[in-house]
Amino acid sequence: MTHTVEGIAASAGIAIARAFLLKIPDFHIEKERIDSPKQEIVRFEVALEEAKQELESVKRRAQEELGEDKAAIFAAHLLVLQDPEFIGSIQDKIREENVSAEFAVREIADMYIVMFEQLDNEYMKERAADIRDVTQRLLARLLGVKLADIQAISEEVIIVAEDVTPSDTAQMDTRYVKGFTTDIGGRTSHSAIMARSLEIPAVVGTKRITETVEPNAWVIVDGLDGKVIVDPTDEELEAYRKKQAQYEEQRATWAKLLNEKTVTADGTRIELAANIGTPEDVEGALKNGAEGIGLYRTEFLYMGRTQLPSEEEQYNAYKTVLEKMGKHPVVIRTLDIGGDKELPYLNMPKELNPFLGFRAIRLCLEMQDMFRIQLRALLRASVFGNLKIMFPMIATLEEFRQAKQMVEDEKAKLITEGISVAEKIEIGIMVEIPATALLADAFAKEVDFFSIGTNDLIQYTMAADRMNEKVSYLYQPYHPAILRLIDMVIQAAHKEGKWAGMCGEMAGDPVAIPLLLGLGLDEFSMSASSVLRARSMMKELSKEEMKVHARKAMTMGTGEDVARYVKESFRLFETMK
Amino acid sequence: MTHTVEGIAASAGIAIARAFLLKIPDFHIEKERIDSPKQEIVRFEVALEEAKQELESVKRRAQEELGEDKAAIFAAHLLVLQDPEFIGSIQDKIREENVSAEFAVREIADMYIVMFEQLDNEYMKERAADIRDVTQRLLARLLGVKLADIQAISEEVIIVAEDVTPSDTAQMDTRYVKGFTTDIGGRTSHSAIMARSLEIPAVVGTKRITETVEPNAWVIVDGLDGKVIVDPTDEELEAYRKKQAQYEEQRATWAKLLNEKTVTADGTRIELAANIGTPEDVEGALKNGAEGIGLYRTEFLYMGRTQLPSEEEQYNAYKTVLEKMGKHPVVIRTLDIGGDKELPYLNMPKELNPFLGFRAIRLCLEMQDMFRIQLRALLRASVFGNLKIMFPMIATLEEFRQAKQMVEDEKAKLITEGISVAEKIEIGIMVEIPATALLADAFAKEVDFFSIGTNDLIQYTMAADRMNEKVSYLYQPYHPAILRLIDMVIQAAHKEGKWAGMCGEMAGDPVAIPLLLGLGLDEFSMSASSVLRARSMMKELSKEEMKVHARKAMTMGTGEDVARYVKESFRLFETMK
Repeated sequence: MTHTVEGIAASAGIAIARAFLLKIPDFHIEKERIDSPKQEIVRFEVALEEAKQELESVKRRAQEELGEDKAAIFAAHLLVLQDPEFIGSIQDKIREENVSAEFAVREIADMYIVMFEQLDNEYMKERAADIRDVTQRLLARLLGVKLADIQAISEEVIIVAEDVTPSDTAQMDTRYVKGFTTDIGGRTSHSAIMARSLEIPAVVGTKRITETVEPNAWVIVDGLDGKVIVDPTDEELEAYRKKQAQYEEQRATWAKLLNEKTVTADGTRIELAANIGTPEDVEGALKNGAEGIGLYRTEFLYMGRTQLPSEEEQYNAYKTVLEKMGKHPVVIRTLDIGGDKELPYLNMPKELNPFLGFRAIRLCLEMQDMFRIQLRALLRASVFGNLKIMFPMIATLEEFRQAKQMVEDEKAKLITEGISVAEKIEIGIMVEIPATALLADAFAKEVDFFSIGTNDLIQYTMAADRMNEKVSYLYQPYHPAILRLIDMVIQAAHKEGKWAGMCGEMAGDPVAIPLLLGLGLDEFSMSASSVLRARSMMKELSKEEMKVHARKAMTMGTGEDVARYVKESFRLFETMK
Repeated sequence: MTHTVEGIAASAGIAIARAFLLKIPDFHIEKERIDSPKQEIVRFEVALEEAKQELESVKRRAQEELGEDKAAIFAAHLLVLQDPEFIGSIQDKIREENVSAEFAVREIADMYIVMFEQLDNEYMKERAADIRDVTQRLLARLLGVKLADIQAISEEVIIVAEDVTPSDTAQMDTRYVKGFTTDIGGRTSHSAIMARSLEIPAVVGTKRITETVEPNAWVIVDGLDGKVIVDPTDEELEAYRKKQAQYEEQRATWAKLLNEKTVTADGTRIELAANIGTPEDVEGALKNGAEGIGLYRTEFLYMGRTQLPSEEEQYNAYKTVLEKMGKHPVVIRTLDIGGDKELPYLNMPKELNPFLGFRAIRLCLEMQDMFRIQLRALLRASVFGNLKIMFPMIATLEEFRQAKQMVEDEKAKLITEGISVAEKIEIGIMVEIPATALLADAFAKEVDFFSIGTNDLIQYTMAADRMNEKVSYLYQPYHPAILRLIDMVIQAAHKEGKWAGMCGEMAGDPVAIPLLLGLGLDEFSMSASSVLRARSMMKELSKEEMKVHARKAMTMGTGEDVARYVKESFRLFETMK
């Protein structure tokens, strides 16, 4: 029976295809005495060998199609299958207790998983996840059950899953995956970010989509309105095919703006940039008409590995991005780790409130050896393009001064060593802490630019963890308090002749764009896939008019009032979500 | 050898006495086969009986001297000793494995502790703490070791401990305990708050005091400058006795201000109020000259128990406070639970960032049945004094409107039921979230008053958990951004003819007081023990002059600049810490 499930519109567009249900099977295994432990051990070894071969091929494909970092996930899985203690324990259990191979695998794996998960160490917890993944493969082989195999997908589908993990996306053939829809997650979860970066429609956080969709059922993912239509009627199919065509048409119109500059209706030049995570993302940014990189998140260089990246490795990554972007500005953010992003090999202490903890610049100012290596790599790469360095989570002027001094020190050292460094490198900060926005006038005298990080700024200003569903109603980008902080930052920058950008989710949000234009934002950095839509919007908007709207919005009492006002004032953007 | 250990000045004054080292002994117990399990069981039962009697007497004394809530800690300990499963397991182990009573106690207790601690449930974790405490008593009896017995203290001492827990303070005879010093904790930790409420000098967060003090060594706790002098020389003793006398003299001068009103040098009337946690605290507030209660933290009514307090129980508590305070204003804050304060019996889900989570008004607006009971109790008590109701953690106008509507609803219901309610009850909010301070102009149109909660406001504005030592350097009350937010709140209140108070630690801080006066704060609510010092300071300060200083401080770049400026401008307060 046709029915609609509501969720969060995480990536724009309409997808229509059959459901590929990515459910983790529940293996029930009874303990029973077996007659020939030898035979069970052989069964186990065959399954082990097959699982290894399977993983080898997955890994190879990931290397070729997705790059080394994605392939590393499978390398870690392979390590488990080669671990003599893990394998030995299973064999011993079969031999000593006369149990079946599947029972032994399940018991030993569970023991390791519980053990690793109890350790207060993220690295070990990830190992528990690896063992869980590998155990699935082994049990599926032993029980003759077929796992939902993302790699085997060879016709158009919509992935319906509790969540879409990095391990899942690493295995996906994007020719066939037309859309995602998930039970959990929000606009900033991995699944949502991945969907936008792959440019496929997605609706996340439906709470119950996996319960309500049968395998192979027809599904419509409406990433414009945050709806999933399950088992649509013919009328619904027709209506959504029409909506899809309209959206595609609109995208085609946007595509014509690819090589145009971004100019408002009343002639103000705006810079539209893209946020990226790896050098490979540059291509997508250029393909979507980005005029620069407004945020290069360098932490991906540090993640999914067992030790810090070398100076050389970092240098190469930064150089690649700078070269590919040519004269266009590239804002590279120094390491922003901690909070929800951990580096297992740093063995950081567990924190009660990681979002309010020892992270980003706070950590870099203490772990100076690590930080200086990144700064050297950045400075060496600076000669290959238009580099701007940005520090994350700056809360005080002292922190900024200390970090800037370290850049100067390393620059002087490099020059002494005869290594060339670009003459003028702008040094700026993320404004994502309320104190920094409130004191923007003092900061503006010392920094070269601001980039407002709305994801964190909103959560601190509202005192609401954006990942916590119980308080997600307080994550309100249009709240007048947020607009006032943004206004303070932009005004302060302009007063000192500096520029102010934004690199949070809000910069690409069609409801926010008119307000941000009115507040005078100079640079908007967003998911590459939103750039052309934003350019098309800005062409229609007069900055002077938006100024009036923005001032008015700032005097309102609630975020809801602001959202309603913008939506009513700009009906023309109804279809631009 | 004499040496000085630096720490955090947590409670003012100088204490000189011998150290009472509160170290938890490390019981090493070897497994060895014993010959007569029967005899071991008898040994165990004797120890059990003695431990029970000991606990009964501790509990009785706690009831008499400290009230029911403190005694509840020991009632929980007694429950463990009466638990048939716990006792039975120990007896079985001795019988079946031929092990000593102490070994069996240790093993079974450890098993329970590990089991309870692994559960993701605060209530069970507290049970683990109870078992740990009780096991100590049993083992000490069995091994003939004497535990450091806080209750047995019968001469003047300074408690030197890793931390001072609620269980410790419940057992203390405050005639003999002259001071605290601890390894861990900050100005807002339990040990610090307790020291201020007991009016004994304390230095916390020394990191290493328990390692550096021998039992019975002479120790000076300098709660004015945050120093502990261990094994002082005769000269040091003399110098500190002098400092102590000066401080006492100063306190005597302050004591003369007990019944005076608080008026600045240029004649502005200020209201000085006290923060309290229980009805028993009212006495201390009055004894210290408080002109009102600026914050009654009702969560203590809900804590340390196994179910919600009834409407009647709450009504009696509120009535008591209101009656004792007579015509003086009493600001009662509705339930502020969550964050670092959990109610085990509510079974709240574990949160990744509890300080940014589902707490205080957020929780009350969802758990309306619980909230309405509190509101009814408050409204019924309102006829006995000058009640003002305050909602914590308000982030949006919608939240305030919803909470206020519930007050109105309950009021109407009570009146229909023929129960009388005070005619005019002011309804205000805590301002502890940056968004609320930023939008104070809009809030001021709807609330009756503001009370600025600086403890939380600072941690959100700086995005730094005040309990996390790695980022505690960012907990900066004098940061210009904080001053600007306070300024916005006060200005907004006055523009609408409302009053603005403060009930965070900052309100009683001698460095902050001149600035807060200058910013126009109407009401200062603090630890009772700080009230007279504050009144004495204010007498010396001209509000008009402070206005100039406050304006200047707001234009500075860093918190350090502000602190230096205030300290240099007001050398006269050097001794007033």
